[in-house]
Amino acid sequence: MTEQQKTALVVSAHSADFVWRAGGAIAQHATLGYAVHVVCLSFGERGESAKLWRKGEMTEQRVKAARRQEAEAAAEVLGASVEFFDIGDYPMRADTDTLLRLADVFRRVQPEFVLSHSLKDPYNYDHPLAMNLTQEARIVAQAEGYRPGEKIVGAPPVYAFEPHQPEQCEWRPDTFLDITEVWDKKYAAIQCMAGQEHLWEYYTRVALQRGVQAKRNIGITASKHIVYAEGFQSVFPRVTEQLG
Amino acid sequence: MTEQQKTALVVSAHSADFVWRAGGAIAQHATLGYAVHVVCLSFGERGESAKLWRKGEMTEQRVKAARRQEAEAAAEVLGASVEFFDIGDYPMRADTDTLLRLADVFRRVQPEFVLSHSLKDPYNYDHPLAMNLTQEARIVAQAEGYRPGEKIVGAPPVYAFEPHQPEQCEWRPDTFLDITEVWDKKYAAIQCMAGQEHLWEYYTRVALQRGVQAKRNIGITASKHIVYAEGFQSVFPRVTEQLG
Amino acid sequence: MTEQQKTALVVSAHSADFVWRAGGAIAQHATLGYAVHVVCLSFGERGESAKLWRKGEMTEQRVKAARRQEAEAAAEVLGASVEFFDIGDYPMRADTDTLLRLADVFRRVQPEFVLSHSLKDPYNYDHPLAMNLTQEARIVAQAEGYRPGEKIVGAPPVYAFEPHQPEQCEWRPDTFLDITEVWDKKYAAIQCMAGQEHLWEYYTRVALQRGVQAKRNIGITASKHIVYAEGFQSVFPRVTEQLG
Amino acid sequence: MTEQQKTALVVSAHSADFVWRAGGAIAQHATLGYAVHVVCLSFGERGESAKLWRKGEMTEQRVKAARRQEAEAAAEVLGASVEFFDIGDYPMRADTDTLLRLADVFRRVQPEFVLSHSLKDPYNYDHPLAMNLTQEARIVAQAEGYRPGEKIVGAPPVYAFEPHQPEQCEWRPDTFLDITEVWDKKYAAIQCMAGQEHLWEYYTRVALQRGVQAKRNIGITASKHIVYAEGFQSVFPRVTEQLG
Amino acid sequence: MTEQQKTALVVSAHSADFVWRAGGAIAQHATLGYAVHVVCLSFGERGESAKLWRKGEMTEQRVKAARRQEAEAAAEVLGASVEFFDIGDYPMRADTDTLLRLADVFRRVQPEFVLSHSLKDPYNYDHPLAMNLTQEARIVAQAEGYRPGEKIVGAPPVYAFEPHQPEQCEWRPDTFLDITEVWDKKYAAIQCMAGQEHLWEYYTRVALQRGVQAKRNIGITASKHIVYAEGFQSVFPRVTEQLG
Amino acid sequence: MTEQQKTALVVSAHSADFVWRAGGAIAQHATLGYAVHVVCLSFGERGESAKLWRKGEMTEQRVKAARRQEAEAAAEVLGASVEFFDIGDYPMRADTDTLLRLADVFRRVQPEFVLSHSLKDPYNYDHPLAMNLTQEARIVAQAEGYRPGEKIVGAPPVYAFEPHQPEQCEWRPDTFLDITEVWDKKYAAIQCMAGQEHLWEYYTRVALQRGVQAKRNIGITASKHIVYAEGFQSVFPRVTEQLG
Repeated sequence: MTEQQKTALVVSAHSADFVWRAGGAIAQHATLGYAVHVVCLSFGERGESAKLWRKGEMTEQRVKAARRQEAEAAAEVLGASVEFFDIGDYPMRADTDTLLRLADVFRRVQPEFVLSHSLKDPYNYDHPLAMNLTQEARIVAQAEGYRPGEKIVGAPPVYAFEPHQPEQCEWRPDTFLDITEVWDKKYAAIQCMAGQEHLWEYYTRVALQRGVQAKRNIGITASKHIVYAEGFQSVFPRVTEQLG
Repeated sequence: MTEQQKTALVVSAHSADFVWRAGGAIAQHATLGYAVHVVCLSFGERGESAKLWRKGEMTEQRVKAARRQEAEAAAEVLGASVEFFDIGDYPMRADTDTLLRLADVFRRVQPEFVLSHSLKDPYNYDHPLAMNLTQEARIVAQAEGYRPGEKIVGAPPVYAFEPHQPEQCEWRPDTFLDITEVWDKKYAAIQCMAGQEHLWEYYTRVALQRGVQAKRNIGITASKHIVYAEGFQSVFPRVTEQLG
Repeated sequence: MTEQQKTALVVSAHSADFVWRAGGAIAQHATLGYAVHVVCLSFGERGESAKLWRKGEMTEQRVKAARRQEAEAAAEVLGASVEFFDIGDYPMRADTDTLLRLADVFRRVQPEFVLSHSLKDPYNYDHPLAMNLTQEARIVAQAEGYRPGEKIVGAPPVYAFEPHQPEQCEWRPDTFLDITEVWDKKYAAIQCMAGQEHLWEYYTRVALQRGVQAKRNIGITASKHIVYAEGFQSVFPRVTEQLG
Repeated sequence: MTEQQKTALVVSAHSADFVWRAGGAIAQHATLGYAVHVVCLSFGERGESAKLWRKGEMTEQRVKAARRQEAEAAAEVLGASVEFFDIGDYPMRADTDTLLRLADVFRRVQPEFVLSHSLKDPYNYDHPLAMNLTQEARIVAQAEGYRPGEKIVGAPPVYAFEPHQPEQCEWRPDTFLDITEVWDKKYAAIQCMAGQEHLWEYYTRVALQRGVQAKRNIGITASKHIVYAEGFQSVFPRVTEQLG
Repeated sequence: MTEQQKTALVVSAHSADFVWRAGGAIAQHATLGYAVHVVCLSFGERGESAKLWRKGEMTEQRVKAARRQEAEAAAEVLGASVEFFDIGDYPMRADTDTLLRLADVFRRVQPEFVLSHSLKDPYNYDHPLAMNLTQEARIVAQAEGYRPGEKIVGAPPVYAFEPHQPEQCEWRPDTFLDITEVWDKKYAAIQCMAGQEHLWEYYTRVALQRGVQAKRNIGITASKHIVYAEGFQSVFPRVTEQLG
Repeated sequence: MTEQQKTALVVSAHSADFVWRAGGAIAQHATLGYAVHVVCLSFGERGESAKLWRKGEMTEQRVKAARRQEAEAAAEVLGASVEFFDIGDYPMRADTDTLLRLADVFRRVQPEFVLSHSLKDPYNYDHPLAMNLTQEARIVAQAEGYRPGEKIVGAPPVYAFEPHQPEQCEWRPDTFLDITEVWDKKYAAIQCMAGQEHLWEYYTRVALQRGVQAKRNIGITASKHIVYAEGFQSVFPRVTEQLG
């Protein structure tokens, strides 16, 4: 049983979200031996590809292809597998088939933990949709009566990764993950996102700020040197045998 | 460095609170090798000793003595040390001397983690006072300029243990501690509280309910048998290297 | 006018929810002479019938039939009528026809008060859907222009009954209903739920805890002996002529 | 036992607050036979007597005397008794003696219910102080060990009456009291407040708005004609035997 | 550039909402030279036309026609243009076509600011739907990849206007707009709503109350005479060069 | 009247807070012609002078003197006047004399707007104390009966500037102030804080992040180039004549 590889699931509304918001967590857990799987619900072809569209001579297919390439490159750098649901964005809509498709991913991956977007984001309605879809898919995947006989999933913790304007999204980090050791991988993955270069330094600063904050929340015996961190908000309580 | 014994601090408004609300955590960490220290701000002589007062022939000194005895017995069962500030209850008031006295306890104990009451409790104003005092004492103990030269404390996590009517106190557990292994110790400590027998079964049921809930929040590889649990609400974000 | 029988409406996402969460309220009001009507939106065939599925040789139809039988038996014990919308669960989806069907139930029943689920439940997305459907159906049933000429409904109070993990659902009881007199009926109804035996003692403890809490919120002239209670959260303000 | 007169307690930060904010409730319960007692913590001599100060030739004693006269006249119109703690305003400060003095009022009055200010008011820090003092006094009065042998109080419901800018105070009415029958008394009491004439029409409109809102929250069998109402926010859950 | 007329967009769930809730803002900005455009998603034919339905001999078409006439008259009085999406009410449902139709209005109007309903309203589910539709349409209209080549919109501020029972909708005004100068226009527009005469005085009182409150929030150099005001809640932070 | 210089008041718990958190606002309004006055309640001698204490040979007086020098230099760079209440820190305590002293500053300064700390800060109890003191002093200064005859203050807007860990303080910026033009002054003032060099880059990044966010909240006609910004949270609603 203990020989089984641990796994994690990341659900990203657009094909770059997992890089900015969870790239450190992905690289960190890949390093720890987890098989991390990313589902991109869309390519962000309409809403997050402004630079590509401004190039001219663009079609939705070309934009999608370029975005897919970037995302695959980033996932490889981070050490994760990635798949694309291609359900469209701005607006994103998920029907029951999409929900069950994601539930099936839960069944297949059997994740130890799950990452997706914040439950509120007034700047981007696709993000809460992705998180709600993720949570409902997890619930369906827990049901004995959905595809009876398959192995159901347990109750893996779900975390909301950091949105672009955290306070406006009522997102509060309750967990800081030290990503200092894997920061070079995250920054390399960030650099795969050629279409959104204006965000490279923004998310570098986010990682540095969260790093400083993480250091301010360490107890007395810790002597770690944290420089970069990512923040996460738990959806569910955690279960533990030790509080220290 | 690693040979140093880990420590924890529990701040209890009245002399029985630490038993009902954190007895499992105390016993569990004592078992894990922690030196757990309990500060009782008062004996609960006015507000939580109804049964004693109804005996007749009582004075505040006699009530305090009886309560002290119960608390010391309970602490011993749980494996913790205990001290009494004796600042009175109903109403509890803490002046700056009391604050600094508690800051000095922080400096002396250097706790890995801290437990106290919820920040809101419309049924009991002594409880939020205890938590606020605890948090401010921790802040003072972190200051280089308070008793310069002494070893300051780090930023140990602070948890609010469970109040009597959790929803009315806006208390939401984000951490469940499995106390199944030490339940017998907690129940033995509970039985030391002769004056509040009506609460024995109440807090047994609390532990069972939280046990069921803990099981509902366990991820996929967990195969533990949890029967009893305690819930805690974190005041600060935790810092970690792994989300699974 | 006063001879007219008073009525109440309970909307249950799955066919057992009304028993665990509102069985006492149903029995209590049936005893008081109310005609209480229960709408079960689904049988909980996928998500809340694990024990049945594990029996083997099961089909969705068999599970539904077994669940219907249990729910009808429980309703009879509690003294309520029950109907089943059979719209499926995990995931539950309600189209406009279902909404209007429920609005028609409101028109037919003309309830004095309404009970359904909490508006948030991260463990179960069917529950908030049921409450939202209930609230919107009530609004449609109030509209003069919906089926013009029919008798519209007033503004009956709506209460959210207790979810499984109340704090995680941001559910706060503002009303405790004394169910001591009808507890035997509720427990008999609970025992009809053969497929979910693990919940019998859980909800017995819930009733005992809420009973203790109810006693802690009684004013001075009350001398009642409350042992069992159910908690409810009001959606709307109540209108009264007396505050005492 | 049933022959005992029911009682209520109103704690007003300044000597006119009870009129604007709870005058209808006072008159209504006086009409129902309650002995309603009002405690005015201050005369509002500094902060709510601008018109008097502008008259010139004023001293704090003269302002207080004028305010006392107005408040006594208003209390008489409403049918309540009134006493004045005279602890000052802008800023208001309450020491332990004041707390115990109010606890003693609780013991003496043994109220069925209690009214005071909202727990937040960024426009007036005296108001939250009054409510916190009221709640803590109630808690002290419940303690067997405070003045042992005296009759303790039960757990009477506490309501926050309406602040001047309700949304800014995070005050949400969960209870509307119909005061149509006693509106003439409330308006007569309002007219006793010669120093704050600018508020007369303001609070008339408040009563009319709350009246309209109350009508929008009445269930189906109600056929009442509500014109004027007061809103209240409950601090504690209520205990009942009927939800309809 | 500065010669371009400024514009504003108001999205109203039913055809009278914009009058009660934003009529002052519309008239005020029309006076300031803005081209204000109103989109009525429905005529409120089912839910807000009780008086018309009670006339007898009514059909949905006749009700709609009467409501359209009232709304057009009111818009003219206020100085705004108006269009009707006619998507129905009680329940209101908006498909993707409706969303894109509204996004196209955003692109066409290029509003400086946007007004719609509160995000929560337990009395009326059409209202939050309208606001969510508005916000999502604004997001789609911002996307370079939606109808590539068209002029996208910026990030105009969005405000929620006042719901009928503000506290129950968790609506808190953070902006008071002085409408004293245009009150006569707002009241004239209100009088166009022949079918809802019971609301005329209600919303007059709302404007007076908000006027008094606005005066209580004015800094020291202001010497304005405000009698009538409207309250608004911002969805997004504002950007400014001066705090005074 | 219009010739009078506009003024602003900043209340800083420790002598460096006004630089990190409001230095841009101070410089910006000084540039606009405001007389900005800063009150430092303490020198931060105990809690925010770690580097000084570690130098050795230190006394509280020497630390205070060094901190005073830094703060005065920073204020001069920003173009503000500064005074020091010297009430101590870690813990900070403010008695009634301090409150009235600050009320007298309000009377003297007659500020157009006021800046202070967030109302919650679990990392630093001095910060909420400073904001509460500021708000209560403003209220006292508004009272006709406090020092009758003096010119009272109006209702100047109060803003909470940014705390160190914004989400943990439940602080949400609703106002972004463009400080691009004065950034060089703010950074020069920051460099006066020799004792807290570790914060220089932290608050540079804060200003850059808020600058990016500000740009994401600008409406359509804005064409400004914002690089640096400060965020503020309003305590009170603002009053305006234009929403665009």
